[in-house]
Amino acid sequence: MTTRTQRLQQAIADTGHTFQGPILGGGDYVPVVHDGDVAYVSGQVPRVGRKVVVTGRVGGSVTLAEAQQAARICAIRGLLLLQAQLGDLDRIARVLRVGVYVQSAATFTQQSEVADAASALLKTVLGDAGAHTRTSVGVYQLPKDASVEIEMTVRTRPTASGTA
Amino acid sequence: MTTRTQRLQQAIADTGHTFQGPILGGGDYVPVVHDGDVAYVSGQVPRVGRKVVVTGRVGGSVTLAEAQQAARICAIRGLLLLQAQLGDLDRIARVLRVGVYVQSAATFTQQSEVADAASALLKTVLGDAGAHTRTSVGVYQLPKDASVEIEMTVRTRPTASGTA
Amino acid sequence: MTTRTQRLQQAIADTGHTFQGPILGGGDYVPVVHDGDVAYVSGQVPRVGRKVVVTGRVGGSVTLAEAQQAARICAIRGLLLLQAQLGDLDRIARVLRVGVYVQSAATFTQQSEVADAASALLKTVLGDAGAHTRTSVGVYQLPKDASVEIEMTVRTRPTASGTA
Repeated sequence: MTTRTQRLQQAIADTGHTFQGPILGGGDYVPVVHDGDVAYVSGQVPRVGRKVVVTGRVGGSVTLAEAQQAARICAIRGLLLLQAQLGDLDRIARVLRVGVYVQSAATFTQQSEVADAASALLKTVLGDAGAHTRTSVGVYQLPKDASVEIEMTVRTRPTASGTA
Repeated sequence: MTTRTQRLQQAIADTGHTFQGPILGGGDYVPVVHDGDVAYVSGQVPRVGRKVVVTGRVGGSVTLAEAQQAARICAIRGLLLLQAQLGDLDRIARVLRVGVYVQSAATFTQQSEVADAASALLKTVLGDAGAHTRTSVGVYQLPKDASVEIEMTVRTRPTASGTA
Repeated sequence: MTTRTQRLQQAIADTGHTFQGPILGGGDYVPVVHDGDVAYVSGQVPRVGRKVVVTGRVGGSVTLAEAQQAARICAIRGLLLLQAQLGDLDRIARVLRVGVYVQSAATFTQQSEVADAASALLKTVLGDAGAHTRTSVGVYQLPKDASVEIEMTVRTRPTASGTA
């Protein structure tokens, strides 16, 4: 039986990237606000270290598969930020809402399929707690020409006991 | 005096569509997360049965009136999902926030007028509890070429007593 | 030592605009829902009185500096609405989340830099309570051709004691 941390490490390994050091943001905001038993995670672009690794319009210069990879990296960043904030991924009681923004070409309509890659990762790592509501839209531009941006809201619990 | 359920049925009849069987979604997420006394509803497109019935760019191939019809269908789907989750529409204490995404032509700026159709429906069905905060934006693309997508967050109460 | 109200008045003066009378919205929704200890603020465009004062695409007819001014006006409107609803800005315990929508030209990717102007203003006025999570995206159109739209969610406290 694996832990959430082990499954997150596997998901990271599957991307072919390494995430070392602090997760860097790109503006005058904080990555996570943990307020009572709800934690809000700022919108994450597919940044690894200092570099946004998937840029361009999905359905144009960026394929669906590349956008799905971007979505996974955004979700991984969110989980790493929550892990740093909460001390333990097992303190995530439930992912409440995920917002997925896809920088889209004019005729690209598979935003849900891009978002599914992030949703599947959250369920793989967190189990039933990873099932969430979601809003996916196709936007015109994202910061740093990122192909995908993902924000999350989660409910937390005081201790990490009793999770698989 | 009518009930919320009766008023929702009237709103459905006014669309000319029937909503039978479960409300189907389009991805790897859940339609509603009910957490404590807050329920989050995933972004809804104007899908009736398996078919998205209003597609295309608003202000282009889609008129304002057609987009308003789409917005009403999105709001109806949200209410039907909440009814299924909560067991009774009377358990909605307050609509907290509505997010409205309009797939817009390049010069279309009446996103608020599109959203107003959903807002009016929520107030008609729910009364004062249907008054909400709202964010309306014009996006470049929506899943399945949908013309409108609407998400909702509502506060719930344990029982359905005392509502009109 | 200055109060939050004084610092907001200074921020308003810095815009060169005056905000007198009620803050007007543009649709069939309410400006703020205060539910328990969370207040939701509807998406604000840079409207002063009845007029949206910054319109057009950022990176096109609108410069980064003009968009930053628009972002500040949106944030000021949000704070004025919260002040009216709560009676005192000191009742804001923490800004939880800020959503920033920038009506962007096709190749404009500095949405974060636009949003930073609003974020800095919130921190200037509210101090540590103004630090927030944020999601910034570039949308295709905004209501009334507004260049920027900003929504906020804040946690409140029952009384205004103990704030700087």
